[in-house]
Amino acid sequence: MAGSRHSVVHLASPDDMEQQFYEALQHADLDRLMSVWSDEEEISCVHPGGPRLLGPRAIRASYEALFVHGALHVEPTQVRRLHTHSTAVHSLVERARVMTPRGPESAWVLVTNVYVKTGHGWRLVSHHASPGAPDEPGEALPSATTLLH
Amino acid sequence: MAGSRHSVVHLASPDDMEQQFYEALQHADLDRLMSVWSDEEEISCVHPGGPRLLGPRAIRASYEALFVHGALHVEPTQVRRLHTHSTAVHSLVERARVMTPRGPESAWVLVTNVYVKTGHGWRLVSHHASPGAPDEPGEALPSATTLLH
Repeated sequence: MAGSRHSVVHLASPDDMEQQFYEALQHADLDRLMSVWSDEEEISCVHPGGPRLLGPRAIRASYEALFVHGALHVEPTQVRRLHTHSTAVHSLVERARVMTPRGPESAWVLVTNVYVKTGHGWRLVSHHASPGAPDEPGEALPSATTLLH
Repeated sequence: MAGSRHSVVHLASPDDMEQQFYEALQHADLDRLMSVWSDEEEISCVHPGGPRLLGPRAIRASYEALFVHGALHVEPTQVRRLHTHSTAVHSLVERARVMTPRGPESAWVLVTNVYVKTGHGWRLVSHHASPGAPDEPGEALPSATTLLH
């Protein structure tokens, strides 16, 4: 149906956009990933331990470099949402599957994602990620060992 | 004049609030610092290398613990602003003065501050800080040695 994709974009919530963001990472889909981001020059991105990246060009290049190694095994957990009419601030803990000398383990990354409502729908304007402590998720979640079974 | 303080708060811009935030850190002024923050339960804060903190109570306690050691020698630099009608996302590099075996040096912290416009004016709802690389500020700024003279 003509215009249906456009409608979907407009109706998408911040949660929908966040789901698209992580699915794009999980499939190393660069175009889909960048469609979640705003195209403003002032958007910012910090990968864990990395420098500050500003603007769509630098951010796209960073993901392109990451995807050389394939898709990212990362999923959002413990999402806390602060929503206003036109702003959505999501604080979450990413669980990443990483290889270690002891085999695959979970690593935890603290993330703040900020979305703003634009004329084209909700768009990501800031992604700040930093390494979490090994026991980040706390006692409320099953252990990494359990998660891998 | 009755109500003048209220007016000032309403007129304060995100930049004004950010200035108050850093002045409060520089003076270890806990009450002033917390007046910059929103009082919503979903506000979030990550100190460099620290865990995720949620809500005014946990955030206040973390600054109280920091201030036990005195004021923080930290100042915002290279502020990049993404502003909408009711959202302000600031990506910046904090310069912190730290003591090392070689004497005082500058450390760099990558920070994302998010402000939203509330009925009481602009308020901080998210502060995410993570360690930057030693050469974070790049060649455009004077060296740490120069800064300390």
